[in-house]
Amino acid sequence: MLNINSFGIIGGDKRQLFCARSMADDGYGVFLTGFDKSDNMLGLKNSDLASVINNSDAFILPLPVSKDGSNIFSPFSESPIKISHLIKVIGNEKPVFCGINGAVDENTISSMNLYRYSNCEDFSVANALPTAEGAVQIAMKEYEGTISGSKCIVIGYGRIGRVLSPLLKSIGADVTVSARKLRDREFIRASGMTPMSVDNMEGKYDLVFNTVPAVVLDSHTLARIAPDAIVIDLASLPGGVDDSAAERMSIKVIHALSLPGKAAPKTAGIIIKNAVYNIIKEEEL
Amino acid sequence: MLNINSFGIIGGDKRQLFCARSMADDGYGVFLTGFDKSDNMLGLKNSDLASVINNSDAFILPLPVSKDGSNIFSPFSESPIKISHLIKVIGNEKPVFCGINGAVDENTISSMNLYRYSNCEDFSVANALPTAEGAVQIAMKEYEGTISGSKCIVIGYGRIGRVLSPLLKSIGADVTVSARKLRDREFIRASGMTPMSVDNMEGKYDLVFNTVPAVVLDSHTLARIAPDAIVIDLASLPGGVDDSAAERMSIKVIHALSLPGKAAPKTAGIIIKNAVYNIIKEEEL
Amino acid sequence: MLNINSFGIIGGDKRQLFCARSMADDGYGVFLTGFDKSDNMLGLKNSDLASVINNSDAFILPLPVSKDGSNIFSPFSESPIKISHLIKVIGNEKPVFCGINGAVDENTISSMNLYRYSNCEDFSVANALPTAEGAVQIAMKEYEGTISGSKCIVIGYGRIGRVLSPLLKSIGADVTVSARKLRDREFIRASGMTPMSVDNMEGKYDLVFNTVPAVVLDSHTLARIAPDAIVIDLASLPGGVDDSAAERMSIKVIHALSLPGKAAPKTAGIIIKNAVYNIIKEEEL
Amino acid sequence: MLNINSFGIIGGDKRQLFCARSMADDGYGVFLTGFDKSDNMLGLKNSDLASVINNSDAFILPLPVSKDGSNIFSPFSESPIKISHLIKVIGNEKPVFCGINGAVDENTISSMNLYRYSNCEDFSVANALPTAEGAVQIAMKEYEGTISGSKCIVIGYGRIGRVLSPLLKSIGADVTVSARKLRDREFIRASGMTPMSVDNMEGKYDLVFNTVPAVVLDSHTLARIAPDAIVIDLASLPGGVDDSAAERMSIKVIHALSLPGKAAPKTAGIIIKNAVYNIIKEEEL
Repeated sequence: MLNINSFGIIGGDKRQLFCARSMADDGYGVFLTGFDKSDNMLGLKNSDLASVINNSDAFILPLPVSKDGSNIFSPFSESPIKISHLIKVIGNEKPVFCGINGAVDENTISSMNLYRYSNCEDFSVANALPTAEGAVQIAMKEYEGTISGSKCIVIGYGRIGRVLSPLLKSIGADVTVSARKLRDREFIRASGMTPMSVDNMEGKYDLVFNTVPAVVLDSHTLARIAPDAIVIDLASLPGGVDDSAAERMSIKVIHALSLPGKAAPKTAGIIIKNAVYNIIKEEEL
Repeated sequence: MLNINSFGIIGGDKRQLFCARSMADDGYGVFLTGFDKSDNMLGLKNSDLASVINNSDAFILPLPVSKDGSNIFSPFSESPIKISHLIKVIGNEKPVFCGINGAVDENTISSMNLYRYSNCEDFSVANALPTAEGAVQIAMKEYEGTISGSKCIVIGYGRIGRVLSPLLKSIGADVTVSARKLRDREFIRASGMTPMSVDNMEGKYDLVFNTVPAVVLDSHTLARIAPDAIVIDLASLPGGVDDSAAERMSIKVIHALSLPGKAAPKTAGIIIKNAVYNIIKEEEL
Repeated sequence: MLNINSFGIIGGDKRQLFCARSMADDGYGVFLTGFDKSDNMLGLKNSDLASVINNSDAFILPLPVSKDGSNIFSPFSESPIKISHLIKVIGNEKPVFCGINGAVDENTISSMNLYRYSNCEDFSVANALPTAEGAVQIAMKEYEGTISGSKCIVIGYGRIGRVLSPLLKSIGADVTVSARKLRDREFIRASGMTPMSVDNMEGKYDLVFNTVPAVVLDSHTLARIAPDAIVIDLASLPGGVDDSAAERMSIKVIHALSLPGKAAPKTAGIIIKNAVYNIIKEEEL
Repeated sequence: MLNINSFGIIGGDKRQLFCARSMADDGYGVFLTGFDKSDNMLGLKNSDLASVINNSDAFILPLPVSKDGSNIFSPFSESPIKISHLIKVIGNEKPVFCGINGAVDENTISSMNLYRYSNCEDFSVANALPTAEGAVQIAMKEYEGTISGSKCIVIGYGRIGRVLSPLLKSIGADVTVSARKLRDREFIRASGMTPMSVDNMEGKYDLVFNTVPAVVLDSHTLARIAPDAIVIDLASLPGGVDDSAAERMSIKVIHALSLPGKAAPKTAGIIIKNAVYNIIKEEEL
């Protein structure tokens, strides 16, 4: 069992800063690099890579690890952090917690002692809340009426649908949820919402939220449920909407991706922290 | 494919009456027997068994089928309905929808063309709502403060826990939910409640709701979380509480069973109807 | 300014016991009399009247003060507490906090230094919550379906209507509120419920809650909105229902009075305590 | 009693368009002028002023009537609509429904048969909902965590506070409401939120919503409750915040005005329509 008393946070966006802030509040030593351009360090300070490497018992890489394949994703850094150099200085002993790869090849980074915080199921589930709030924020911005009293349909009752649908209901929307499983539809009904089969969606909605990563909103379904709706697609690309059909029908579609980092980086950073802590506990690091 | 246009409801309690009423409202022919002592027939009328058998395309037996092993459970019937006789007159062709056996042996009734409405998952899930409301009604009756502002713990996040915990929260309780899976605990947190591991429950609660069918509330756990609490045990017998320990510690334990039929027979009857309809659709009867 | 460090609680029901318990938890000396038959003293002990009088800086009389006009209302007392004797031993200096008179004449008790905790507006408003929960408990007990999904109308949008209607809504009922003022009806709409004018009520409801102390539910209105409803009348006697009309129409009417003390004596006792504290602060006792 | 069968909508922003759309859906003849630049007429068409005057039984002027004092507020109009000309062609018989004056002098327009829809109390109360949603939208945009789990204080329990505070609570925030009246504070407590006296605010909040049109957030109060908060000021100008103190303390203050028109013009337009209808009914026009 290791004794992790300090974390080196290398690159990333505001989420990593809030993760660092929260770890420092928990009493850990925290060393950051790649934030020289940030205008608000949350009371922490940026260091050079060498001292971060030397002082930290473990490292946290961002989400995604890289956007260009050769440098760490670090939008707040003046100069790039080369992955090839990083691998050399980190070595293969100290644990490295990282998000999805993004553009970097798995082989490139596999020499490090990697743990994937973004693969943990608790990480995905916890992000359902900031995703749902981000979706509501978009709905409030785009829809010209109030959410209270609007007619909403949420397609899919997975981790996001299960958090988004009661949130919309508690704001006062009239909420329908379409789900494939009968069991889920009974839960939806028991939660005071209207269940609907995915195969047979119908009705007139003001707002359509899709969470299913398959083209459920083809031209036929768009025509049936969305002619006057705003469609907010939360499914990862290519998403669940036939965009060209939507364009022909003048239906506004918003592809809302990576909402936790955009809508609530503080919450998203704390979720990264909790996922790292959970790995440490479960893997007994 | 059969053509079911009429149902014979044979015995049972108020749930069967409400099921019959709702089927009649849907346009089905409905024939009842075993309700001669009922003081409110909901606008329907009781018939003799022979005419029910003759006029119905399918039959619905109660929940449970029998309490004594030889007669149909029929608390509103003056004279018993013998199972042996029923089997003879029903035959083995027309579909018979029934609940759990209760005291009757499977072999005794297996000659009939049986479909179990109480086995369907949608049936169980749908009953979570009347179960949860029944639990809240007991809590309101037994607890000497208001539920709003009380500290509640719900043990287990299965079908009942998932409906009961947000209901308590919406009434204004401070709700903790203990669940085994990390994933569930993250959902609990994302729903604005406090998650807790089952292995390590602690805290001071006014009301403890158990939904887990295993002795989770042993003397140690009772001492930690329930010294001043009222315990409402929703798990089927023998339940989840060490009753003798609770008695020694003067902790009030209420074993609340079969709540849907007691607290909301109308809703419970409609749930039976829906389960029957679902079987007809899925089995293409 | 007095220096009140101890309270004498003289008679009353469970509310006074919980009031005493909570005062003791706040650090006050608490002396009780009139509870010799109580089977649960909440860790406090009963004393004789003389020592209560001697040891207390102020006194709290129950709600109501008397039910027979000559003795203090004290259902947990073996022997009666005579008001005439009490007046003599209390004198006219130490403050006496009391509820409504009940059967006792104002002149009889006016020699004491009386403060009416039940007259304070904060007392009435605070009791709206246990009243609303008590009404929901009755509705759960009497109505044969679940409250979730039921159609409810709340008549009146005063202190009780304002707490009861959102509570019903949060449980999942479809809630209409009838109110006289246009302003109130707009608040009702802004709160996601259906507003209705008092003069012109219509619709088919499962549950009718009246909070208006005037006969709003005459035979015509009962026929329009309540033919299949359960009516829960929360208005003080004679209430808001034409009972003989209701009886002719076989409509079940429940006159639900004094709900805080019945449904939530603990909360009701703490509300008495808070009202007493408020008087002490505002009157600078 | 007049017979109003058609409305002329003269100038204004999207609210007036949605008002017109909704009136047309109700079956009224609707004639618009001042919308020639609008890219979405909601299926209606723009006319010249003369034909609007001739065809309409009553007129609706915007909110505010004017921003420059001599022309009608008409952001979607290519050419200005002169008030002096309008007065001449409208005359003094047909009813003219208008909002607040804005920059135009009362005497200038008083020759018309004016009715103020924005003065009606139902108008103000109804706008509390879109104002509250607009405030939540700003909070979601500005605050870097989720609203769920955040600590919010709402200052004032008037029409906006009464709608905003339960909305924040239903999203999952921990809500404190500060109010002057004890009665209001008891309602706040009975609604499951934390009441606080206005004179003595304290605590650490993430979001501070002010609804009181007086400088309640002076430097001392800002220091006590808002050092790390975002302040959203909903009070009309000059608002309730000592802005220079806030700037010295690096506290972000957002003055959020006219939210209904910005956040939910559709809802705001329907509220204008309802207020006009109410005047017609109450004044028996």
